[in-house]
Amino acid sequence: MSILIVGSLAFDDIETPFGRSDNTLGGSSTYIALSASYFTDDVRLVGVVGSDFEDRHFRLLQSKSIDTKGIQKVDDGKTFRWAGRYHYDMNSRDTLDTQLNVFADFDPNVPHQYRDAKFVCLGNIDPELQLRVLDQISNPSLVICDTMNFWIEGKPNELRKTLERVDVFIINDSEARILSGDPNLVKSARIIRAMGPKTLIIKKGEHGALLFTDNGIFVAPAFPLESIYDPTGAGDTFAGGFIGHLSRCGEINDIELRRAVLYGSAMASFCVEKFGTEKLVSLDLLEIEDRFESFRELSRVDY
Amino acid sequence: MSILIVGSLAFDDIETPFGRSDNTLGGSSTYIALSASYFTDDVRLVGVVGSDFEDRHFRLLQSKSIDTKGIQKVDDGKTFRWAGRYHYDMNSRDTLDTQLNVFADFDPNVPHQYRDAKFVCLGNIDPELQLRVLDQISNPSLVICDTMNFWIEGKPNELRKTLERVDVFIINDSEARILSGDPNLVKSARIIRAMGPKTLIIKKGEHGALLFTDNGIFVAPAFPLESIYDPTGAGDTFAGGFIGHLSRCGEINDIELRRAVLYGSAMASFCVEKFGTEKLVSLDLLEIEDRFESFRELSRVDY
Repeated sequence: MSILIVGSLAFDDIETPFGRSDNTLGGSSTYIALSASYFTDDVRLVGVVGSDFEDRHFRLLQSKSIDTKGIQKVDDGKTFRWAGRYHYDMNSRDTLDTQLNVFADFDPNVPHQYRDAKFVCLGNIDPELQLRVLDQISNPSLVICDTMNFWIEGKPNELRKTLERVDVFIINDSEARILSGDPNLVKSARIIRAMGPKTLIIKKGEHGALLFTDNGIFVAPAFPLESIYDPTGAGDTFAGGFIGHLSRCGEINDIELRRAVLYGSAMASFCVEKFGTEKLVSLDLLEIEDRFESFRELSRVDY
Repeated sequence: MSILIVGSLAFDDIETPFGRSDNTLGGSSTYIALSASYFTDDVRLVGVVGSDFEDRHFRLLQSKSIDTKGIQKVDDGKTFRWAGRYHYDMNSRDTLDTQLNVFADFDPNVPHQYRDAKFVCLGNIDPELQLRVLDQISNPSLVICDTMNFWIEGKPNELRKTLERVDVFIINDSEARILSGDPNLVKSARIIRAMGPKTLIIKKGEHGALLFTDNGIFVAPAFPLESIYDPTGAGDTFAGGFIGHLSRCGEINDIELRRAVLYGSAMASFCVEKFGTEKLVSLDLLEIEDRFESFRELSRVDY
C-alpha cells in the first residue's frame, strides 16, 4: 500500500569515534523513505531541497522506487545542512552546526496524485506543518508521527493538535518523560495515549523499544551489536521499517504491530553499522528477513 | 534438587521516596533463599548473625522450609547492619551507614550434611570466602556467583580464581564494564566468559537482563512496573528465582536457562513492589506462574 512521507532532506557532516563522513545525504525523510522502500514500491516523498541537491541524489532515491515528484527544488537556495559529533558512548552528541537554508521556509505542498495515500509518516518537523500535511490527505488508514524535544517544549499546543489526529506516535524515552511530565514510562504512556495516539512506541536506544496499545505492552529487544559506527538516522530508519512492514502486510493489529516494531528495529540495527545511509542503500530482502529472525530469536522463550 | 546459599544476613534501614522501613530483615542470602524457597524444599543457608537475630527471624526462614542449621550465631556480637537512601529515579542510592559487626570475621563453615549440595549460590561476599566455600563442596552440578565493584576493584586476583570455578556469573552492566574494561556489553561478555563462567547474566535494572551462553544471546525484558517502592534485594531475588527454577526442573540447557532468567525477573519484579522482604515472604506459586506468563507475553511475537 502507498506510503506518504514528509520530512527533511539534508546534507550531514558526521563525526564519530570511528571516523567522519562529510556532505553525506541525510534528513529524516531520506532515512524513512530508504528504509520503507524495501517493503513497498509505492513510497511518495514530500520535502524541499536547494540547488546543491544534484541529479545523482534524485536518482539514488528513484533507484529505490521512491517517488520524488513531491520534492520541491528551490534553485536560489541551499539544502538543509547539519553537522554533529558523537562521543564514545554514542548516546550523546553535539550539534556543531545547523543551517536550515531552504528548510526554513518549507511549506509542504502535497501533490494531488499523492493525496490518496493510505499510510502517512510525518517525520520530525514543526507540528504546524505536520497538521498542514494532514489537511491535504483525503482518507489515510494510518498516520504515524515523530517529533523531538524542540517541538515538545517550543510548540506544545500545536503538537497537541497534531497528536489528536495521529494513530501511532514514535518518540524516545526522554521525550516521553518531558511530554508527559512523569518519569515512569508506563505512566507516561498512559498520559500520552490520552492525547490522541492509540498506539505509542517509546524508543530506548541500546535498550530496545516499548510498544503500548489497548491490548498491552510489547518489549522489543535491541540487537546486541559489537560495533556501532554512526547512530545518525537510526530513529527515522526504525519508523521506515515499521511503516514499511505494516504497508506490506496491509493489516493493523497487535500481532502485526509487534512484528512491525521488530522490522523497524532490524532496519535501525543495519543503519548504525555504517556511516549515514551507506548501509541502508545496499541491503536486500534476504538480509532483512535474516535480521528479523535474529531479533525474534533474541527474546524467544518457547521452542 | 538441593541448593546451598552462602551470603550475608542483615538488618537494613531503608529510605525511598515512598517511605521508610527500619530494622528490616535483609542481606544477600536472605533474599536469595526466600526467592529460591518457592521452587524447592531443600534450601540450605550458610551465614553469620549476632545475638540480635531473634528466634522469630529463624522461624520466618524455617517457615519457608529453609534449613538454618548453617547459620552461625555469635552471642557476643551484632548482626551486619546497612542503612541506605534511594532517590527519585531509584537507580542511584546513598549508603548512609554500614556496620559489618559479626560479618567482619565471617568464615563460612559448611556443615557436613550440606556438602553434597547439587546447586551452589555464592552471594556477594569476599571472593576468598567464596573460594573457601567451594573447597568444602564435594561435587556440585552448578555453581552460581554474584559479586560487586568493591571486590572487582579490591580483590581482582582472588575474584579471578573464584571465576575459574564458576558456571554462571551474575553481575550488572556497570560491573561488567569495569571487570572487562570494555564499554560494549557484547565484547565485555566475551572477555568475562573467557575468565571461566560459560554462562553470564548481565542485569540492566529497568532495562531487563542479557544471558550469554555458547549458543547465543537471550534478551529478557524488565517488567514495566508503574511503581517501584524499594529496589533493595532485587538482584539477589533474581538469583534466587534463577537457581530455584533450575533446581526444580533439574535440567540445564539453553531453554531452561532462558526460562530461569524469566523466573528470576518475575521474582525480582515482586520484590520491588513492597519494602524489604515483605512481598517476598507472602507469595504463592500461582502468582509466580502468572507473573512468569506475563513476562513471556511481554516479548512474544509468535501467537
